Amino acid sequence: MGSFQRPRGTRDLLPGTMQRREAYLRTVRALMHGAGYGEVLTPTFEHLELFEAKSGAGIRDELYAFDDKSGRKLTLRPELTAAVMRAYLEEMTHLPKPLKLYYIANCFRYERPQAGRYREFWQIGAELLGADPLLGDVETIALAWRCLQAAGVETLHVRLGHLGLVRGLLAEGKVEQPEPVLRLLDKGDRQGLQEHLLTIGADEVAAPLLDLLAARSAPSQEQLQLATELSQSHPSILPTVGHLQRLLALLHHANVPSIHLDLAIARGFDYYTGMVFEVDVPTLGAEKQVCGGGAYDLLEAFGGVSTPTTGFAIGIDRMLLAQEQTRGAPAPLEALDVLVVPLAPQAIPLAWQLVTKVRDTTALSVEVELAGRNLGKALKYADARATTVVVIIGEREVAAGEATLRWLSDGTQRSVPIDLVAATLRAGDGSAQAPLP
Amino acid sequence: MGSFQRPRGTRDLLPGTMQRREAYLRTVRALMHGAGYGEVLTPTFEHLELFEAKSGAGIRDELYAFDDKSGRKLTLRPELTAAVMRAYLEEMTHLPKPLKLYYIANCFRYERPQAGRYREFWQIGAELLGADPLLGDVETIALAWRCLQAAGVETLHVRLGHLGLVRGLLAEGKVEQPEPVLRLLDKGDRQGLQEHLLTIGADEVAAPLLDLLAARSAPSQEQLQLATELSQSHPSILPTVGHLQRLLALLHHANVPSIHLDLAIARGFDYYTGMVFEVDVPTLGAEKQVCGGGAYDLLEAFGGVSTPTTGFAIGIDRMLLAQEQTRGAPAPLEALDVLVVPLAPQAIPLAWQLVTKVRDTTALSVEVELAGRNLGKALKYADARATTVVVIIGEREVAAGEATLRWLSDGTQRSVPIDLVAATLRAGDGSAQAPLP
Repeated sequence: MGSFQRPRGTRDLLPGTMQRREAYLRTVRALMHGAGYGEVLTPTFEHLELFEAKSGAGIRDELYAFDDKSGRKLTLRPELTAAVMRAYLEEMTHLPKPLKLYYIANCFRYERPQAGRYREFWQIGAELLGADPLLGDVETIALAWRCLQAAGVETLHVRLGHLGLVRGLLAEGKVEQPEPVLRLLDKGDRQGLQEHLLTIGADEVAAPLLDLLAARSAPSQEQLQLATELSQSHPSILPTVGHLQRLLALLHHANVPSIHLDLAIARGFDYYTGMVFEVDVPTLGAEKQVCGGGAYDLLEAFGGVSTPTTGFAIGIDRMLLAQEQTRGAPAPLEALDVLVVPLAPQAIPLAWQLVTKVRDTTALSVEVELAGRNLGKALKYADARATTVVVIIGEREVAAGEATLRWLSDGTQRSVPIDLVAATLRAGDGSAQAPLP
Repeated sequence: MGSFQRPRGTRDLLPGTMQRREAYLRTVRALMHGAGYGEVLTPTFEHLELFEAKSGAGIRDELYAFDDKSGRKLTLRPELTAAVMRAYLEEMTHLPKPLKLYYIANCFRYERPQAGRYREFWQIGAELLGADPLLGDVETIALAWRCLQAAGVETLHVRLGHLGLVRGLLAEGKVEQPEPVLRLLDKGDRQGLQEHLLTIGADEVAAPLLDLLAARSAPSQEQLQLATELSQSHPSILPTVGHLQRLLALLHHANVPSIHLDLAIARGFDYYTGMVFEVDVPTLGAEKQVCGGGAYDLLEAFGGVSTPTTGFAIGIDRMLLAQEQTRGAPAPLEALDVLVVPLAPQAIPLAWQLVTKVRDTTALSVEVELAGRNLGKALKYADARATTVVVIIGEREVAAGEATLRWLSDGTQRSVPIDLVAATLRAGDGSAQAPLP
């Protein structure tokens, strides 16, 4: 039989990468629990119609959809928000609100593989149901910021907007088909936007929309100033301007540093209802966006009671890529603390007793040499595993009731009564040899 | 639009369950790292042929197989061992051996849903490549035992066998088609086995096979004694008997308590090569098996160099079910340590400063009251979340630079200068109120 490859667009995560990833996810879980969020885990596949209800039938081209053996139309989930909302409606409506949920899970999209884009990718996400819109926005952005910061990535750029501005102006201008406007805004196509607004007769709101677009890269205070001025002649945007002012002030108290406003933002206009934000790691290049979120309301479309919700999703794979840029690539395997090498048949039971004791009483990683090799080869293996201490139990040691501890960093060694080896290792060796990690 | 359900045979894991599950998996990860194992994560789907190469085309009926948009035949993985071996051959052959890998991952099988059996299920597993067969067996069983024990389940039954006995006897009896024999052994069908062995003319080995089958429930020492006696007239099983004796002795040194031998075990005969073991939680009823493992060699079939491997897989879902039998069902949500309730507009910035400080400086879970409710409703929410302390900041408190701390267990409360609230909470409140967790 031939050899096998992993499917195109997927990856194997090896031990060195997984160690870093787990350390990050452990921190994220602690942050989530510290903020009162509870973890949920939904099935990897859902009914196809769930995601069509959220994103329209057009999403089908990006999905790993399949029929099960009973003809049900299923799909690997392309994202978690719809799934978490489905699970909420099915099983959690009785829980006290505001309800705070988070997930760490994989998603699947059938798209052209490229750097930082995989067909199976992982997300950290949170959803907050039933909060006051302003407080929910603060909580969501502050939590996303904490989770992003925990990765130790040097530069994070937060862009914040609010769909209330563009939505208000389009309603005021009686623009019935907002999609073309939003597409032009999103592309930053000033001239196209101007022509389009004239064509559809939305002259009244052309000026403020173009002003917002022109100012999107200006300092946040300037944009806020502009929006405040615009609100005097366009009262439809007054509530949004007030919301943004209060939001920025509270984010300052929640210790979220400089945020860049982008008042012409048009992200996911269809199901976002208010605040939207995106976070980039600029050094990641084309695939630099590591987080997106905002305020939305999907529950009514899913057959439930309309409920304000805010949430975000962080791309784990890109965060780890960004972390590698700062910290370098991980070693392929974790370093080993202790290798116990039995060099005589009667040493083997002693070796197992010893590793069992070390595993029971310390947090050190410890192995018995499992290939039955001689000392030279065992030391070579220990070296390849970046081992700190090798514990040698040969015939002489068995006879003397001792073990020889050898520190690989400087080659020093000493004999320790076998009963004291675990305690010696646990203490990191008090006697000025190379310290244990 | 209508409401949505999760797909048949799948589950949503809610916060209370996930909290227990994460606590268990955190312990398992620590045990794996303590034993020198590195975590791997392979794609959720693989090429269909990978699992056919391991288990034969018959497995297709149990798979969630599908074609991707380029016509590739893919399948959700039904288990991890084949995937980890594929990943090893593709990316890890250069790593020092013995190589120790583990995974915590989901698998998918299309089968009739029933209690303790889901179409998406989760496994903890470990694979050890390139160890000495005896030492590899000890390590694998000892590690599985530690991981199982960590769940705090009361009764765990380990059954240990070795395919060398039956394999040796069948070879000695020149039985060319072992499958029917194995099926009868597995069913414990003594009469059927006897008739079949006579029919195929394997008279010579009928007696020892029937003896092993008859003794499978006898105490381990009796079965070992029987095997030792049989080995005098059937030298083909001599090495296996010696292996089992040494294995049991070393497991004793590795602190694995009583193991029940089953020398007529026929588990997964096709790719297991020697030792096999299974662990049951008897109180789980029909779906009581929580762990299976053994020695195998898949690499040659996958186009690599033959390498002795031992491994196991633990069913996470069943372990959590067993844990529930001991500890009861979890609460739907985690308890909350601290709820901060701002009761005046000017208290809101102070509330955010305070939660930010508590989140930065303690491991407590802390929320701002996010729905803008009055004190009565906020206390009702706090009660529903099983909150320990409510921190109230109203107009009076803002003016005095204080906050009122209220312990819900006994209703006591006291005022604390706002700057000292985080420290007071962190200290678990030194002054004899209800202690914080």
